[in-house]
Amino acid sequence: MKLKIAVLPGDGIGPEVTGQAVKALKSIATEFNHHFQFVYADVGAVAIEKYNNPLPYATVELCKKSDAILFGAIGHPKYDNDPNAKVRPEQGLLKLRKELGLYANIRPVKAYDALLDKSPLKRHIIKGTDICIYRELTGGIYFGKKYLSDDGEIASDLCEYSKKEIERIAVLAFEAAQSRKNKVTLVDKANVLESSRLWRRVVTEISKDYPDVELDFLFVDNAAMQLILNPKQFDVILTENLFGDIISDEASVIGGSIGLLASASVGAKHALFEPIHGSFPQATGKGIANPIASILSAAMLLEHFGLNNEAELIRLGVEKALKLKITTPDINPESNSITTSNVGDFIEDFI
Amino acid sequence: MKLKIAVLPGDGIGPEVTGQAVKALKSIATEFNHHFQFVYADVGAVAIEKYNNPLPYATVELCKKSDAILFGAIGHPKYDNDPNAKVRPEQGLLKLRKELGLYANIRPVKAYDALLDKSPLKRHIIKGTDICIYRELTGGIYFGKKYLSDDGEIASDLCEYSKKEIERIAVLAFEAAQSRKNKVTLVDKANVLESSRLWRRVVTEISKDYPDVELDFLFVDNAAMQLILNPKQFDVILTENLFGDIISDEASVIGGSIGLLASASVGAKHALFEPIHGSFPQATGKGIANPIASILSAAMLLEHFGLNNEAELIRLGVEKALKLKITTPDINPESNSITTSNVGDFIEDFI
Ligand SMILES: CC(C)[C@H](C(=O)O)[C@@H](O)C(=O)O
Ligand SMILES: CC(C)[C@H](C(=O)O)[C@@H](O)C(=O)O
Repeated sequence: MKLKIAVLPGDGIGPEVTGQAVKALKSIATEFNHHFQFVYADVGAVAIEKYNNPLPYATVELCKKSDAILFGAIGHPKYDNDPNAKVRPEQGLLKLRKELGLYANIRPVKAYDALLDKSPLKRHIIKGTDICIYRELTGGIYFGKKYLSDDGEIASDLCEYSKKEIERIAVLAFEAAQSRKNKVTLVDKANVLESSRLWRRVVTEISKDYPDVELDFLFVDNAAMQLILNPKQFDVILTENLFGDIISDEASVIGGSIGLLASASVGAKHALFEPIHGSFPQATGKGIANPIASILSAAMLLEHFGLNNEAELIRLGVEKALKLKITTPDINPESNSITTSNVGDFIEDFI
Repeated sequence: MKLKIAVLPGDGIGPEVTGQAVKALKSIATEFNHHFQFVYADVGAVAIEKYNNPLPYATVELCKKSDAILFGAIGHPKYDNDPNAKVRPEQGLLKLRKELGLYANIRPVKAYDALLDKSPLKRHIIKGTDICIYRELTGGIYFGKKYLSDDGEIASDLCEYSKKEIERIAVLAFEAAQSRKNKVTLVDKANVLESSRLWRRVVTEISKDYPDVELDFLFVDNAAMQLILNPKQFDVILTENLFGDIISDEASVIGGSIGLLASASVGAKHALFEPIHGSFPQATGKGIANPIASILSAAMLLEHFGLNNEAELIRLGVEKALKLKITTPDINPESNSITTSNVGDFIEDFI
């Protein structure tokens, strides 16, 4: 297969981890006789430094012309603590999601047997957990009208959803459930929010087309609790943008490290693959960043094009690395001589 | 001391648990020679059944004329799954918070030594945790303009904050930190939301008046993760309404049961005390509801009036009950013959 892959390493540890994912994809290409072309572009704080724009035009154009996008991470503390900054790295990612119509962010959360004791949660609570979160990614309060009064004393953000926006991701969630454990849990705050009530209504309607899938509802406050009390009760979690952001970061504790969680963001035409962790500025350049989330994002990319054996091989490599403790210090604090690229090399060799 | 206490038991397990808190307060009154008068009123689904209004006028009037309010819980599944319901139990609570100006919801989260093994989190993660969450309670997306298009296809909720709303709760949080571990963590989503950036700006200004208190910032997604990875890093958490709702329910897992968490909601003129758990309809009338959160809410009530010895006595009673395993099945599944009122009786006797 021929694939043109846009690589957007971004900020902080983005370039380091993305480098390992590219290595894995290259060895897959060699092994399986595929032709993958990698084209690089800037996004985030690095793009602001160069062009005063977190998402340069050339980057968007490249993404649109590519078959898939491999994304690193964005964000820089310089902008976080400056509430007056007009341009922010995050705008780059948000605009990219919107421009490419990447409305569904898919985040699998699994408890790896080799890591059961790394989690802050007890072994019996997490063993066997296998959740897939479907987070809406181009709507809600992230993209609603923002307002700041002239005197700077009142600020607001609008959370808006349309039936269409809810339907298209709900369909994906129900389809996913059919090839999993046939359960969808809608997480919302329908006892308070009008938009959540719309979610509940639309998702209930859609569920009628999937009589084999069980649908249940949880308020987001309760969901945040249930995810820790009993994560095994979940199969597919469907939710809006902001709740999905919170819930999926929270769920990362199940695996023992956020450095393990990959994601796919898909739309009608494009697909982007990124680790769910951020740019982790304090770790930049130290070789301590865990590349597994990025490598597993590459596996999701392969799967997206039906290259399931290839994806499986990467996953086996990751599991082996975890078992043999070829991992960065976030997982094995005692192993602080194993670097980001050591892990990447191991998986490359394995393939 | 003379106190007039409005008791609003509400729905589900509300009346059962509130009954135990009243028992505790009555024995405190006897023991310390106080005069507490209890006046009951309806709120929530029960009030809808009777008056088609989740917050009858008489209830608000009673609350305004009382020194404090002891609240049970509200909510009924009948309304949750009916997106078309015009009247909802929750409106009763939200309207009460708004009408009484209860802008600060204070939720202490502690890991009790007797319960360290009940939590889904590992002992060494939670031991020593002592957090106090300050959640803004009368603003944000809970109270912003709601909209549903005529064709029912678009819905929205507005999250709005003013400088004043942020200042008044920030001051309380910094003051609390001064009598604790001198640290305030602001939880927001300033990389996306305009309202969060206002929070960050205003709280940073206020912090200048409290040079002895350290202020730090966490994005809500990261906070949801850090709360489980390392809860001991927190002292006072300050946050807006919706984030506070999610984070504090999540934090309840630290103590091993949401049935332990009390809260105070205070404003310039009034104060309301309620367990953070909901109406738990499935448990209604079974005698399995944990009354400790409600009893500890009564302790917070006493403290609010400077009755610190009295509050301490209740807390000692609770700790003793936990140690002796005089607790409902949520905490000791093996003890399913110990009922809600058994726990209440034990604490009454202790006092
Ligand atoms: C960087 C930030 C804007 C982003 C988000 O909130 O969506 C990140 O947290 C994520 O989850 O991908
Ligand atoms: C019942 C509901 C409206 C309420 C809230 O969301 O504030 C509850 O969850 C709480 O935290 O007190």
